[in-house]
Amino acid sequence: MQRTLVGETVNKVAETVRLEGWVDTIRDHGKITFIDLKDRTGIIQCVGVNLPKVSPESVVAIIGTIAKRPEKLINQELETGQIEVQIEKLEIISLAGELPFDMGQKELNLDLPTLLDYRALTLRNAKQAAIFKVQAVVVEAFRQALIKKDFMEFQAPSIISAVPEGGAEVFKVGYFGYSAYLSQSPQLYKSLLVSPFERVFSVNHIFRAEPSVTTRHLTEATSLDAEFGFIDSWKDVLEMEEYVIRFIFSEVEKKCDKELKMYDATLPKLSQKIPVIKLREAQQIIFERTGRDVRDEKDLSPEDEREICRWASEEKGSELIFISHFLTKKKPFYVYPDPEDPTYAFSVDLLGRGVEWSSGGQRLNDYNSILNNLKEWGLKEKDVELYLQSFKFGTPPLGGFALGLERITMHILKLSNIREASLFPRDLERIDTRLSANKTP
Amino acid sequence: MQRTLVGETVNKVAETVRLEGWVDTIRDHGKITFIDLKDRTGIIQCVGVNLPKVSPESVVAIIGTIAKRPEKLINQELETGQIEVQIEKLEIISLAGELPFDMGQKELNLDLPTLLDYRALTLRNAKQAAIFKVQAVVVEAFRQALIKKDFMEFQAPSIISAVPEGGAEVFKVGYFGYSAYLSQSPQLYKSLLVSPFERVFSVNHIFRAEPSVTTRHLTEATSLDAEFGFIDSWKDVLEMEEYVIRFIFSEVEKKCDKELKMYDATLPKLSQKIPVIKLREAQQIIFERTGRDVRDEKDLSPEDEREICRWASEEKGSELIFISHFLTKKKPFYVYPDPEDPTYAFSVDLLGRGVEWSSGGQRLNDYNSILNNLKEWGLKEKDVELYLQSFKFGTPPLGGFALGLERITMHILKLSNIREASLFPRDLERIDTRLSANKTP
Repeated sequence: MQRTLVGETVNKVAETVRLEGWVDTIRDHGKITFIDLKDRTGIIQCVGVNLPKVSPESVVAIIGTIAKRPEKLINQELETGQIEVQIEKLEIISLAGELPFDMGQKELNLDLPTLLDYRALTLRNAKQAAIFKVQAVVVEAFRQALIKKDFMEFQAPSIISAVPEGGAEVFKVGYFGYSAYLSQSPQLYKSLLVSPFERVFSVNHIFRAEPSVTTRHLTEATSLDAEFGFIDSWKDVLEMEEYVIRFIFSEVEKKCDKELKMYDATLPKLSQKIPVIKLREAQQIIFERTGRDVRDEKDLSPEDEREICRWASEEKGSELIFISHFLTKKKPFYVYPDPEDPTYAFSVDLLGRGVEWSSGGQRLNDYNSILNNLKEWGLKEKDVELYLQSFKFGTPPLGGFALGLERITMHILKLSNIREASLFPRDLERIDTRLSANKTP
Repeated sequence: MQRTLVGETVNKVAETVRLEGWVDTIRDHGKITFIDLKDRTGIIQCVGVNLPKVSPESVVAIIGTIAKRPEKLINQELETGQIEVQIEKLEIISLAGELPFDMGQKELNLDLPTLLDYRALTLRNAKQAAIFKVQAVVVEAFRQALIKKDFMEFQAPSIISAVPEGGAEVFKVGYFGYSAYLSQSPQLYKSLLVSPFERVFSVNHIFRAEPSVTTRHLTEATSLDAEFGFIDSWKDVLEMEEYVIRFIFSEVEKKCDKELKMYDATLPKLSQKIPVIKLREAQQIIFERTGRDVRDEKDLSPEDEREICRWASEEKGSELIFISHFLTKKKPFYVYPDPEDPTYAFSVDLLGRGVEWSSGGQRLNDYNSILNNLKEWGLKEKDVELYLQSFKFGTPPLGGFALGLERITMHILKLSNIREASLFPRDLERIDTRLSANKTP
């Protein structure tokens, strides 16, 4: 008998079907047993008598007839709440061992370390799984938005041979007797691909040997990168990024209604246009609002980011805000200085709900300016050889941006720790299991 | 004046437009100069007098009027071959330095090391770029095929904490005083995600410290992975894989006509159904066809793979063939032995045009069988802790496959070396630039 998915049952009242899935919860009422069965499409109540003994999370097949529930037993919260399956036969496909904690509830009340120690199990919780359904929609929307604009996908390498911007916070890889490193960003690759392909994007993993445990850093994260040529100004980059963000939000809204509800989350509120202000303007606003004088600081602190997001939300009706014109010398060598005041650069961060979601901007495309900057930044030409090649042989004005997939996921759902937004988060203390528990340094 | 793309010019005869792109070739006829201008949408002939001096690959803007060419000057090979642009003004946006070799020809006649030494430049050649346009279509088709079948995308980690199957050919990463490794396959992750999500796929980078230089191995490659539960048998895996492959081919055929023509390539011929034969059957066929007695060998050699592909093509009308029932003990611990003869496993390779494109099959889902195999394979439970968790708590019959993106690209276009099918190929000797040239070990 062919399998019927839970999602198909509502149209099969009075039919006998074979369901296959996991036992979510069991309610034993003496002879009668209620089993909530889940599969990838949903969950349904099944009821039977004299069933074989089965444990939660076991994989079973249930053959039974779909029946309407009596009026008073209808569960409005469930898509299948109007029906139930009268079990004729229950086959055990894979019996689950005793669970270390109760899974049969909407919310898993576990601390983060336990949640991750049992990742293979805790992901079966619908609310946990929802995070990654949203994440899959975000990443797919990012790609589709850019494909529509004629961007080409490329594969950015993870192994690199040099770290032009210094060796701090970079992972070292043994490479046939040489030292190699894990890439912190595909920036140089995506820029050099502008001349062959004009518009490129990549979904790639980036690596950062962050030596501290914070709620917003992972050692391996997913970066959504885009770069394109023939921009008229840095504002073209913002416009493209805003288009991508809005496309992502509209896809999540369309496809993740159920998941958003589980987290009582709404997508960030946007005004007609995402506001854009300069770093110095942001600092002035923060000073005026809080009395904290940050006007000479070289960057925004986490506290500043939260405050300027509050301002944007309260005064501009937008939970996202672009901050531009960071200090040139605080940015990488390829940043494009504002000709009107080269102390500041056409560099732009997108902040959302209090934190940085993305950074981007216009890049230098003049070969000699790049060479000069390499010198000024104290970097070696031979460490960026392929990159220089591109600009030596003609490259148009270009720019781009990189969005953090886990950060977007985290802030759409208002999770409190970025680890929750990564299936298998890596940090100082953990690669799947806790390093200290399994290994000797 | 707004930019017009080359691809839009054919509908703008008699209009004055602004084109922006790269100078492909220059033909100087005294006062009159012909410039072929390329952008991401195509190439067009422009003609002008007294133009400023410009070099090939320079980025320019051309303002001019689109005119029909005289009948006898029409170039049928070019999409814009019926028209040309009469240059009114040529602006130099970024002047290219002197090229190390001639780019203005259809074919780059360079040896592979030079092609890669100048990767940022050689990718601008249309025939080189075509490889990666095909690759982008392959990877997008892989995803769309699976999304249609209700698979969810996930991010597979690159950094892993243990190498359950031994440390050969694995890259080691320094990780805060601990040893970590680069993943050779997301196999264990995709399997453990079957219980939370039932059907998953991933586009991810895999790493292999291949200590020799071959034409078919890269140290960093892109793997297209799929895994799903509730299969009735290993044949469900083949069926899904065949569906994905056919979907990829049909998308490439639809979207890459121009690129295939550049390589004089046709997609692999397929019969009604991709043939499936067992390892021992393949060896028998090879013996009968060649007299080489390989019937007791534990695997197919590269020569065997080529021969069985020839057989499939000649006798079955298919350039792809599935080989099943490899020796259980030659496969990883999670392989599912055929109950009728457990010496052989429900393990399946897809061969195409003489080489392996993919491997896959059914996996063990019974917890105790997995524990037994770990012992028999001499592996440690603690190295696969998260994976075991999944099976301890109930997992349905499952299987999946992994396709090599660069290999598919290579064999669709009949390239002779896999390095040509990777934007930035890494091997024993090279990470972008040659290791020996830039570094001391």
